[in-house]
Amino acid sequence: MNGRSESTRTRSRDVEGALVDAAEAVLVREGAAALTVRAVATEAGVAPMGVYNRFGSKDGLLDALLVRGFRRFEATLRSNPEVLPLPRLRACGQQYRTFALANPRFYELMFQYAGSLDAHSQELDAAGGAAFGVLVENVVAAQAAGGIRPGDPAELAQLIWSAVHGAMSLELAGRTLTPDPEASYENLLELIVEGLQTRPAEHG
Amino acid sequence: MNGRSESTRTRSRDVEGALVDAAEAVLVREGAAALTVRAVATEAGVAPMGVYNRFGSKDGLLDALLVRGFRRFEATLRSNPEVLPLPRLRACGQQYRTFALANPRFYELMFQYAGSLDAHSQELDAAGGAAFGVLVENVVAAQAAGGIRPGDPAELAQLIWSAVHGAMSLELAGRTLTPDPEASYENLLELIVEGLQTRPAEHG
Repeated sequence: MNGRSESTRTRSRDVEGALVDAAEAVLVREGAAALTVRAVATEAGVAPMGVYNRFGSKDGLLDALLVRGFRRFEATLRSNPEVLPLPRLRACGQQYRTFALANPRFYELMFQYAGSLDAHSQELDAAGGAAFGVLVENVVAAQAAGGIRPGDPAELAQLIWSAVHGAMSLELAGRTLTPDPEASYENLLELIVEGLQTRPAEHG
Repeated sequence: MNGRSESTRTRSRDVEGALVDAAEAVLVREGAAALTVRAVATEAGVAPMGVYNRFGSKDGLLDALLVRGFRRFEATLRSNPEVLPLPRLRACGQQYRTFALANPRFYELMFQYAGSLDAHSQELDAAGGAAFGVLVENVVAAQAAGGIRPGDPAELAQLIWSAVHGAMSLELAGRTLTPDPEASYENLLELIVEGLQTRPAEHG
């Protein structure tokens, strides 16, 4: 009994994984707007009902795809070549761009379309929170080393995220108005780090 | 003859204006994805061919709608209550948020969908450039007053734009992770102004 139920669970996970693979293939090839249950079922070689049976709805499938995206994003942010806190914070910003350029359709799905899901799973909240958590950890370490000003680390991480998200949204949309998006991105990271080294009281 | 041709041109502009009004109504009510030639024609009470005759294609209609959006955006950025350069630069950032919150669907169309147009009119390039130009002017004035560091004003304006665009994209998508988006936005403006007051050489 146990063996059978384990192998059933394994098969069930395999099927779900194959459907998420199919969803990723459709996403990468055709973009977020093409992610329909029908397209994903066709890609996976199953009937649409096979998708509904596993994920309940299109949103359920998107949720699983987003979990995969945020886990990959977290892994990219964690593969940080720098050890010292301030260079590490800056490298985290560079890896943010690396991920967005390597996974533009995922990036779009994660940060533009995700807000339109009617419901999020706890798993998705956790995966998104873990990715953001890498940035918060880097902020905390840089604060502890005296590299940047004190203050709520989540608040500072949000400021950094806003800035790098804006830069990458514009770059991915081909809307950057300066000639070299990479150089402008480096300038932005420099600006943020400089701003975070200033204590607000100095200007108060 | 002259009188007749002028009144013909006036009528033609009226019709185009009415179609752009209809497109704006559809956009505001249903979002950018609902902007089809058919929907706009129905809204305006004309046949779809009436839209094609005036604008050539859906992209031509979107182009005209985007011109209107960027002109409104420029007007918002210019209606700046501050006179002194540095407060004026900061107020420009606040008005950016004001526009985005008051015109969320327009904002989305202007900064997410616009990149997907196959071609832009010169008029649209000019309208977008003029809106960005307000930010550049404010940077130049703040530099002249010694409030922020020297450097290519368009490059600095791009950094500011990236940051505020990121914050507003996340806020409009309900993705801001801090509890008070307005306070976080003010913190972001503070961070930018502080970063721009630091001369890179000081950290070099």
